Amino acid sequence: MDQQPNATNSTSVEPHCLEITMEIHKVAPPPRRSSLEKLKNRLKETFFPDDPLRQFQGQPLKKKWILGAQYLFPILQWGPNYSFKLFKSDLVSGLTIASLAIPQGISYAKLASLPPIVGLYSSFVPPLVYAVLGSSRDLAVGPVSIASLILGSMLRQEVSPSSDPTLFLQLAFTTTFFAGLFQASLGLLRLGFIIDFLSRATLIGFMAGAAIIVSLQQLKSLLGITNFTKQMGLVPVLSSAFHHTNEWSWQTILMGFCFLVLLLVARHISMRRPKLFWVSAGAPLVSVIISTLLIFAFKVQLHGISTIGKLQEGLNPPSWKSLQFHGSHLGLVIKTGLITGIISLTEGIAVGRTFAAIKNYKVDGNKEMMAIGLMNMVGSSTSCYVTTGAFSRSAVNHNAGAKTAVSNIVMSITVMVTLLFLMPLFQYTPNVVLGAIIVTAVVGLIDIPATYQIWKIDKFDFLVVLCAFFGVIFISVQNGLAIAVGLSIFKILLQVTRPKTAMLGNIPGTAIYRNLDHYKEAMKIPGFLILSIEAPINFANTTYLNERILRWIEEYESEEDLKKHSTLQFVILEMSAVSAIDTSGISLFKELRKALEKKSIELVLVNPLGEALEKLQRSDETGDFTRPDSLFLTVGEAVASLSSTIKSQSSNQV
Amino acid sequence: MDQQPNATNSTSVEPHCLEITMEIHKVAPPPRRSSLEKLKNRLKETFFPDDPLRQFQGQPLKKKWILGAQYLFPILQWGPNYSFKLFKSDLVSGLTIASLAIPQGISYAKLASLPPIVGLYSSFVPPLVYAVLGSSRDLAVGPVSIASLILGSMLRQEVSPSSDPTLFLQLAFTTTFFAGLFQASLGLLRLGFIIDFLSRATLIGFMAGAAIIVSLQQLKSLLGITNFTKQMGLVPVLSSAFHHTNEWSWQTILMGFCFLVLLLVARHISMRRPKLFWVSAGAPLVSVIISTLLIFAFKVQLHGISTIGKLQEGLNPPSWKSLQFHGSHLGLVIKTGLITGIISLTEGIAVGRTFAAIKNYKVDGNKEMMAIGLMNMVGSSTSCYVTTGAFSRSAVNHNAGAKTAVSNIVMSITVMVTLLFLMPLFQYTPNVVLGAIIVTAVVGLIDIPATYQIWKIDKFDFLVVLCAFFGVIFISVQNGLAIAVGLSIFKILLQVTRPKTAMLGNIPGTAIYRNLDHYKEAMKIPGFLILSIEAPINFANTTYLNERILRWIEEYESEEDLKKHSTLQFVILEMSAVSAIDTSGISLFKELRKALEKKSIELVLVNPLGEALEKLQRSDETGDFTRPDSLFLTVGEAVASLSSTIKSQSSNQV
Repeated sequence: MDQQPNATNSTSVEPHCLEITMEIHKVAPPPRRSSLEKLKNRLKETFFPDDPLRQFQGQPLKKKWILGAQYLFPILQWGPNYSFKLFKSDLVSGLTIASLAIPQGISYAKLASLPPIVGLYSSFVPPLVYAVLGSSRDLAVGPVSIASLILGSMLRQEVSPSSDPTLFLQLAFTTTFFAGLFQASLGLLRLGFIIDFLSRATLIGFMAGAAIIVSLQQLKSLLGITNFTKQMGLVPVLSSAFHHTNEWSWQTILMGFCFLVLLLVARHISMRRPKLFWVSAGAPLVSVIISTLLIFAFKVQLHGISTIGKLQEGLNPPSWKSLQFHGSHLGLVIKTGLITGIISLTEGIAVGRTFAAIKNYKVDGNKEMMAIGLMNMVGSSTSCYVTTGAFSRSAVNHNAGAKTAVSNIVMSITVMVTLLFLMPLFQYTPNVVLGAIIVTAVVGLIDIPATYQIWKIDKFDFLVVLCAFFGVIFISVQNGLAIAVGLSIFKILLQVTRPKTAMLGNIPGTAIYRNLDHYKEAMKIPGFLILSIEAPINFANTTYLNERILRWIEEYESEEDLKKHSTLQFVILEMSAVSAIDTSGISLFKELRKALEKKSIELVLVNPLGEALEKLQRSDETGDFTRPDSLFLTVGEAVASLSSTIKSQSSNQV
Repeated sequence: MDQQPNATNSTSVEPHCLEITMEIHKVAPPPRRSSLEKLKNRLKETFFPDDPLRQFQGQPLKKKWILGAQYLFPILQWGPNYSFKLFKSDLVSGLTIASLAIPQGISYAKLASLPPIVGLYSSFVPPLVYAVLGSSRDLAVGPVSIASLILGSMLRQEVSPSSDPTLFLQLAFTTTFFAGLFQASLGLLRLGFIIDFLSRATLIGFMAGAAIIVSLQQLKSLLGITNFTKQMGLVPVLSSAFHHTNEWSWQTILMGFCFLVLLLVARHISMRRPKLFWVSAGAPLVSVIISTLLIFAFKVQLHGISTIGKLQEGLNPPSWKSLQFHGSHLGLVIKTGLITGIISLTEGIAVGRTFAAIKNYKVDGNKEMMAIGLMNMVGSSTSCYVTTGAFSRSAVNHNAGAKTAVSNIVMSITVMVTLLFLMPLFQYTPNVVLGAIIVTAVVGLIDIPATYQIWKIDKFDFLVVLCAFFGVIFISVQNGLAIAVGLSIFKILLQVTRPKTAMLGNIPGTAIYRNLDHYKEAMKIPGFLILSIEAPINFANTTYLNERILRWIEEYESEEDLKKHSTLQFVILEMSAVSAIDTSGISLFKELRKALEKKSIELVLVNPLGEALEKLQRSDETGDFTRPDSLFLTVGEAVASLSSTIKSQSSNQV
């Protein structure tokens, strides 16, 4: 402890402002409220922190009905005021994201081991549903890479997509149904805070790891290997790629390399100049067209390059009969639905919030969950798999000037036209270009500046990033995520178990008391030990706090012993930060008071907040805690009042 | 919001103390420390909050060795000063607890479905080990009811003690070994805080439920039923007891009733007059002697009463060869060891701490864990099962005047003498008396006044009590415990996810700002919204805090609108309670600042603590958060300084 040299000089630390604050203010008991009121209040803060019903207050009945309909279908909010000017913007952005959505849809469906056409189906129905129900104006809806990856890899654990494609497809639709059900229930039950447990650090590490895994999967099409491993980990994929060098096809590699460079350059241009967003937005479709034409023109010579093959024309066939709510795979399907549901929900809501913050409007998390959930439930019965708001496509949508969800409708209609009339054109599209498109899309998920920022700010969060990243790469996508979430929650529990305490000192010339470690000019007051407890007190930390406070006292006493100065008379606990307390916490104070009484030290509480004060009073038969000389509103007043009693005592003794 | 009528009158709320505090104090950056130092500090607070090495500092090497030996073997601390006077006290208390330990040992072993003699073995070796290693002076070591109950009921899930007694015994010893290993490791790794997660509320509910379950098990011997159910739940046990009314033996019931009344009266006497502790302490042994004599005298007539039967003479046989570290039951054995280990550890440490607090000495939690763990590991290889410090016996020990762990040695020697010479005497002891002894012992575990106290103080804790109680009674001992612990942790996580925020107002005539809801005299300051955030900020609550703060602002604005008064200009966040923050928390402030800038409201931080301030600075490229006009040491200074800038601005405009 670096006590200031004059801290032992009792007169010099007497704060000069004390005379002013010597007028002591009583600590008022909090206003009485019944347990029911408190419960109601707590439930409201837990489930309705955004207070969605506030706008209904004091409105006439008809207005309430309209507001209610608008609440359920946000399209009714902006629809009536929709203008041709807005439509022009939405048309441009809708066509732009369609040109991205078609190749990405096909690619991501392949990533999920599903037929390519399912990716297009999934870009047709869900955007329409979202346009009616969703509250974000920028979200571009469709399949996304990470959910596709997880869905494919988890279902492959039990069913092989090549040997039993029908069952695999059925399971994929059922998974989508459960994902939607889970998402909608979270929104309906207002349990949206569950996705908050995926911290930013977890997501950054997880996304980066998933991007690596997804890119590695593309080695199959980029190198032209036919017998590729079904596993996802870094080690088996790399070893598989280098054990099949005989299958490598130089034509494929050359073509893949050229288009990868093209796409990455386009991406780089758009990133440096956001005005040129259309360069990277159009590049995938251009690549698909050029490569398809190339294959079509030279099809005899380039037969080493695999292509998508024949795709069926026509709109989404109904699939509700494919949903399987029984059988041996139900457990896997529910688990996969849960994980893909929560992951895609997190992405969708994070994306929605990001752009809402840029344009300064509000996205209601719980409403979004219901919209995304219903979208997936409808999708599961119209041959779509898990969809959400994709980050890359939404960014393009935003840059292209989208004003409302109409851009999703435009995209959807474009996809519909494609499904109806243009499917034969994709017959010669080479898989290698789809691989290049995926790699370019997921490279953006690796956020090195954010990782560096996290390293700078918080080392523990950086550890979470690393665990998520390496967990995904070396163990598995789900377990990597689980480890990172577990670590984040462990950190919270550790914080709860080991709350901070600090010794306060007086800042000379004021009645302000601050941490002695932090404010070097702050001074100790002889005879007083002033501690602030900086966390809610509960069963998990009372033992620690008890030990820690006794250690503060011992340290203080051993120090004072050396200086042969005044003995410790008062322990002041500054409780402004103790926002909650439970029965164990109340016992802590009782035990502490008893232990201190034996040393004839008095325990003084300063500014206990409503809940703590109320519980202390209710448990306090002797009235020890609410005696005016052991309860003060500020540390300054406590020190002033108590040091005057010391003085009067000593003058009486003389 | 109940704003005071004159709150809108800007001059009346100008606190008169502001002139004094207008001297603005800078918020100092915390002293620089390297990441390594911080890590070291945090690890120390996490694992060594009691700072066990403090006493070694600055001591010569020889003294350090002595202190080290004393640290490992507390007997070396008090042994050298041991006197005949102390021994007299210890002899009396040792004999007293032995008279309790012998009948209880036999009874608890039967509760665990083990041969009665194992209970006596367990009262011989473990107390000797504890006397050398333990730091409590009052703990009376031996088998306890709840650990016996759990051990028996869990092992019976896989092995029947009647059809394969040898295997059952082997598994019991192996369980004891794992319980000890787990306990010792917790102490060695300084993870003692894990037992803190068993909150007081959980324990009270759990103990009461277990007491009911244990008492119900005694219906077998109290009613003289031979074909009793092996299940533990309330429903199966009661239905079993009332389905076998034909097996009820009136002689047994009569005898049981008499002795139960005798024991309960003795307990009542001792509880009302602690000086008469020997009445309840001696009653079990007296009951055993009287009932044995009765049976011996009238053995022909009373043949309806079952007795213990022949017990083998001799000391504990070695049992290390019985430990089974392989085979199909290993999983169950480890799980049982874990649960019995943690439960008995909790009881032992709670008991040790209770009496240490009464006599004002310290019990080191981690050291106790190692002592209890080693005691069980040694016990497992000398035919003992799980032991710990029992509450009832320790209370008798304390009341009988025990001064040191020598009373455990005295008890142990008494048990040894019994094992060597007195075993034949127990042949005619009736089981019904053992049942009555158990019931009397566990009735004390039902703590109704404490439950009422919890109901009064904290309704949620009361819910935890109920869940633990009914979970144990109706589901199972382990699951009831798991539900209660889960609920307690859920409450903590909910607190973390929904931290409290409060709107502060000025207490007239001071520079003090307090919660407007709590202090009715506090007044709002026009143009200022002053919020205090009363919890650490992390990923799990940033979304909520963001929404909540924006709602505060909206509420404030809509209110001010009505009054056509000054517009909101400053949002002041009082951060004294934000003891920790992570990267998500930092982003929260950045986003909040951006959102407020759009409304031309300025964000002002007051008294961010060391960690929060440091991280804000490190992440703050623009220096927005550390500008002198947006960072203040107290709310009073912030309001004073900022309202003077408003005034000068408006006078400039005029």
